[in-house]
Amino acid sequence: MRVNLPKNLLAEKLVLLERVIPSRSSNPLLTYLGLAAEGGALLLFGSNGEVDLEVRLPADVEGEGRYLVPSQPFFQLVRSLPGETVELALEGDLSLSSGRFRTRLALAPTEGYPELLFPDLEGGEGAFTQRAEFLAEELGRALSQVRYAASNEEYRAIFRGVQLEFSERGFRAVASDGYRLALFDLKRPQPFTKKAVVPAKSVDELVRVLRSAEGEVVLALAPGTLGLAMPQEEGTLRMAVRLMEGEFPDYERVIPKDFPLRASLEVEPFREALKRVSVLADKQNHRVDLFLEEGRALLSAEGDYGKGQEEVSVVLEGAPMSLAYNARYLLEALAPLSGQAELLFSGPTSPTLVRPLGEGGYQAVVVPLRV
Amino acid sequence: MRVNLPKNLLAEKLVLLERVIPSRSSNPLLTYLGLAAEGGALLLFGSNGEVDLEVRLPADVEGEGRYLVPSQPFFQLVRSLPGETVELALEGDLSLSSGRFRTRLALAPTEGYPELLFPDLEGGEGAFTQRAEFLAEELGRALSQVRYAASNEEYRAIFRGVQLEFSERGFRAVASDGYRLALFDLKRPQPFTKKAVVPAKSVDELVRVLRSAEGEVVLALAPGTLGLAMPQEEGTLRMAVRLMEGEFPDYERVIPKDFPLRASLEVEPFREALKRVSVLADKQNHRVDLFLEEGRALLSAEGDYGKGQEEVSVVLEGAPMSLAYNARYLLEALAPLSGQAELLFSGPTSPTLVRPLGEGGYQAVVVPLRV
Repeated sequence: MRVNLPKNLLAEKLVLLERVIPSRSSNPLLTYLGLAAEGGALLLFGSNGEVDLEVRLPADVEGEGRYLVPSQPFFQLVRSLPGETVELALEGDLSLSSGRFRTRLALAPTEGYPELLFPDLEGGEGAFTQRAEFLAEELGRALSQVRYAASNEEYRAIFRGVQLEFSERGFRAVASDGYRLALFDLKRPQPFTKKAVVPAKSVDELVRVLRSAEGEVVLALAPGTLGLAMPQEEGTLRMAVRLMEGEFPDYERVIPKDFPLRASLEVEPFREALKRVSVLADKQNHRVDLFLEEGRALLSAEGDYGKGQEEVSVVLEGAPMSLAYNARYLLEALAPLSGQAELLFSGPTSPTLVRPLGEGGYQAVVVPLRV
Repeated sequence: MRVNLPKNLLAEKLVLLERVIPSRSSNPLLTYLGLAAEGGALLLFGSNGEVDLEVRLPADVEGEGRYLVPSQPFFQLVRSLPGETVELALEGDLSLSSGRFRTRLALAPTEGYPELLFPDLEGGEGAFTQRAEFLAEELGRALSQVRYAASNEEYRAIFRGVQLEFSERGFRAVASDGYRLALFDLKRPQPFTKKAVVPAKSVDELVRVLRSAEGEVVLALAPGTLGLAMPQEEGTLRMAVRLMEGEFPDYERVIPKDFPLRASLEVEPFREALKRVSVLADKQNHRVDLFLEEGRALLSAEGDYGKGQEEVSVVLEGAPMSLAYNARYLLEALAPLSGQAELLFSGPTSPTLVRPLGEGGYQAVVVPLRV
């Protein structure tokens, strides 16, 4: 198999693979990059066992084959090749030449490399029987804005994932660590009903490739697997991630419904004030006090270094209230927001709802600290 | 003591202190930032025990005093203050206000804080009896270009420093780890004769502050201490670093004098080819072979992944020669260079001299690997 293609195109697509292919693995074959020819295109593929990725790109290809090349030197070399094009010849080994540089790399046998299954962009038969279409940008936003709330703890493993909910009401991404919760609703009705939990680290990879896409993408489900297919400026990209077993406990009951106090505010100055005041907070519990009355929020904190306070203008609806938060949780809940937001208080020790003012699929629940 | 000054000026100068003041130290007082008023200026000072730094900046100051404030919250807060100015009031504690933000920070007693000694920019009495003037840019270049050759090993501690040599012939900075050597000569005759070894990490701090300066700076020596004084756009900066004991063994004898082969070359393409070929090198010894003949250098390497080679044009004077290098050492020796350089070969297993073609104070010695 012989391939000839522009160096910059190859280097750009390899960046996507470089994120996924591990430099070390208990299965050494996974440290290799796959190269294959198919219908006049070059396929690049790789996997870390949790995330599989395939990039198809236009190239001048002769012959056929499926080869595994050592990814680390290949990534390093392609970045810095002296020529404008790269010539690859694969048979017993890989010969690469570009400008006055030549190299021969040893190949690994493809036997024992896992079979990678991806959904087709156009639909069709296969293991991926449930399919839904999204805009890359909205799906990327839904996933990226809730991901922070997933747990890092071993305890209750399901919370280390992000739950995707498909139903005729729409699509929801939700994450929680048991102490706070974030969800994002897309109003797009789904052609099937299903809940699937994706490990948070795999969500990061989905978000990363969605950022490189525009227009429509396909999510598809096969047993134990979520697949993504999307067109790219040159070629197409397909990804498959392993699902976690189980589904979230009933989280809807922790989302408060009645709010004796509502505050609407400009996110930016509120967030900056909260950051400043939190510098003085106790290093253990990051406690910041919030006192709301008469068009203002008074933020204050006290710790080993001393104390600090700042006042921010807010529009209030309801009776004055004093609360305290772990500043980190409140800052993370505000992080996806800009412009105007609402804080909806159900009580001084019961959950607070954070969401954008007006339209927007994002909602976060933060539980105040006991005062 | 009360101080009023622009937030951005304070934040900018604090960046210099933030590099030096440790967040943890066996002497907890060193984690504090010093603030003092002197002659209508605000002094900021700090030390990590090896490097002392003082920044003097214009401010609206009332009263006098010398105070230690907790540096970590102070650094964090000043970066993000909401107002354009900062008001500081220091007495029993530090009151800071800016915009609608207020904080009170606890102070540490100044007793037990080391006395920091700095040379004066203008000369005068004091511990710093030997003084020399430099241009900030040339001194910074001399130090930064040799620093890489200093050792990281515990063994032969003196090689973990950079030796500064002052004499009537000029100024030289030299570093070596026993396997390679780099030196930089400035032709500026010095008013005294002295060798002083500065720890490489302290050299990094000197280089960093020299990059923020323009025009003339002063180096000065006191027993066990090297001082630096320099004007800044607003205010002045003074630094003092502890010297290491001892001086380098006689390194001049390892610098070769006779060269049966000389190569002149364009640094950039040679370096890039060397980087590419070195990707294929053995991971233990990083060996790259160099074969020089008839206007070309053939670089090649072979390791676990396979082999690679590239040809680069060079102008040769002398008989063909085959050598091998640790690619990392050769790349580091070339790193300070751009444009045209010379490689002067004393033999296939004896030291090679690397230097810019034409004028330039930099020279490096790299010992080839035994073939």
